[in-house]
Parts: sequence; structure tokens; C-alpha cells
Amino acid sequence: MTGGRRLTRTFAFTSIGRVRSRFKRPEDIPPPAFAPPGFFDRSRGELRIYKKYEPALKDTEGFSHLVVIFSFHKSRGVKLQAVPPGETELRGIFATRSPHRPNPLGLTVVRVLGRRGAVLRVSGLDLVDGTPILDIKPLTGRDRPGRIRTGWIKK
Amino acid sequence: MTGGRRLTRTFAFTSIGRVRSRFKRPEDIPPPAFAPPGFFDRSRGELRIYKKYEPALKDTEGFSHLVVIFSFHKSRGVKLQAVPPGETELRGIFATRSPHRPNPLGLTVVRVLGRRGAVLRVSGLDLVDGTPILDIKPLTGRDRPGRIRTGWIKK
Repeated sequence: MTGGRRLTRTFAFTSIGRVRSRFKRPEDIPPPAFAPPGFFDRSRGELRIYKKYEPALKDTEGFSHLVVIFSFHKSRGVKLQAVPPGETELRGIFATRSPHRPNPLGLTVVRVLGRRGAVLRVSGLDLVDGTPILDIKPLTGRDRPGRIRTGWIKK
Repeated sequence: MTGGRRLTRTFAFTSIGRVRSRFKRPEDIPPPAFAPPGFFDRSRGELRIYKKYEPALKDTEGFSHLVVIFSFHKSRGVKLQAVPPGETELRGIFATRSPHRPNPLGLTVVRVLGRRGAVLRVSGLDLVDGTPILDIKPLTGRDRPGRIRTGWIKK
């Protein structure tokens, strides 16, 4: 490694499925700060996983909640800081959930309603139709600390 | 799209930093089921983010917990099902946190101890030294449902 030169590696991933959602465009999804109470709880949709991965979905339906990692495929342009919707101050992008991140990776927690083959029916969906899914993980107790402090985000 | 042919897209990401941890090899990290109580709470380390991303870290220290998305860079080989450590049944890989996933993406929740420039000191670290970090997000109330059911995982 030459002095001061930072070598970054590239990591390539492929989608394992797509989201089916009633939100057809990013503009259809209200920022959490503007959504009515319970809005996303009522938001249902599907995680349509490609058939070849169906065996990997076994037992997912035993969990009440799953973590979905996806690509912000509509995101164009990277910001290091941004003013969140409804806010006035610039925040570091890693202190926000903005799609305009150095790596456009998204994360959302959904509730499992049921599974039929390679299709998971879920609620709590805040993703646009067609969103490429990269991974699904069970939400466990270790992801869920007892008390949290959420910085600039209003309760 | 030709009949039955599924076109997947490739998504490329680069690391935004590296983990500094006392766990030098994957074998140094006990599976959660085998770790003594509080083991990971006592496990401290650093998220060493590359200098050019330092502005993106502003305000992260206002959150008690951050979500780290990383690459399982030591993972070799993909499984669709696996027997978790200490278990006897094959589980779907998306119902586990195994590193041998179709996309070797990992997720962990850490507690923020402090930040100095582009270095976050954290506890709750269950990652191997040198792990490439792909993204950091604030843990918010929406990631933390009130009650959860965790399938095959023992309490």
C-alpha cells in the first residue's frame, strides 16, 4: 500500500427477489415524520423471492419480524450530509436513513403475515414496488436493545 | 425477458471503513447461543471509517445504538439451509444469521461509546478484526417492535 493511498474493495451482490408494494413511486411513501400513526403497520405487501431460494425461506415464518436488506435502486447521487424531511439542520448521512448514501443499501423491519412457497406476505412495508431484495434475516433479541436514544429524531 | 428466465442485477458496493476488534479470527467469536451472559456487551472495538466519509458521521454519536451493515469477507460458499450451532435441525438460511448466505451481507447492532473524527468506539461488537463496513445507520424506534417472536431461537 503506498503512503496515504486507501485501497477499497468492491463487493458485488445480486438480488434474491423483489418487493411487491402498493407504493409505485418513491414519492408515494411519506417520510416517517409525516406518516399518520400506524400508517406503515397497515401497509401490506409481498417479498417475492426467486424460486431457486425457496429452501432458504424455511422457518422464516416462525419469526414475527424479519429484517430486509435491499438496494435503494431509485437513488441517484451520494450525499455525505442532508437535511432530513421536516428538519432544518444538516445531518451526517450515517445518522439518517436517507437513500442517498455512499452505498445505497436500505434496511427495513417487516412483520410476517404468512408465507406461501417463495412469497412472504408482510406488513410494515415502506418500500417501493420492484425494490431489489438482497437479504432477509430474522429479527432477534440482540437487535433490540431495551432502551435506545435516537439523537435528532423526534419521538 | 425470455420464458422462465430470471434476470438478476448485480449491485456493487465499496467498503466505507473497517472494524477494529479483538477477535482476530471467526473462530474467536462464540455463537450467541454459547456466549456467556453479557459477553458481547463487554466486547469493545472501533469502527474505523475512511477519512473522506468523516462528514457523514456527524450526529451518529447522538444515537445510543447504530446498525452496521458489513461484508462477511471470510465467508466461503453459499448454503440455502444450515444447522445452527448447538441445534440439530436444518433451518432456512434466511431464518438464520449464518455468514454462508446467497449474499454475504451481515448486520449487527452496536452501542456507541464515543466518536473521535472518523473513528467510532463501540461495544456489543461480534465482528472479526478487519471486517469491511458497507453502511452505518441509526437504530430507530421503527426497528424495534414492542414484542417479537423468534422462531427456532431459544430465549
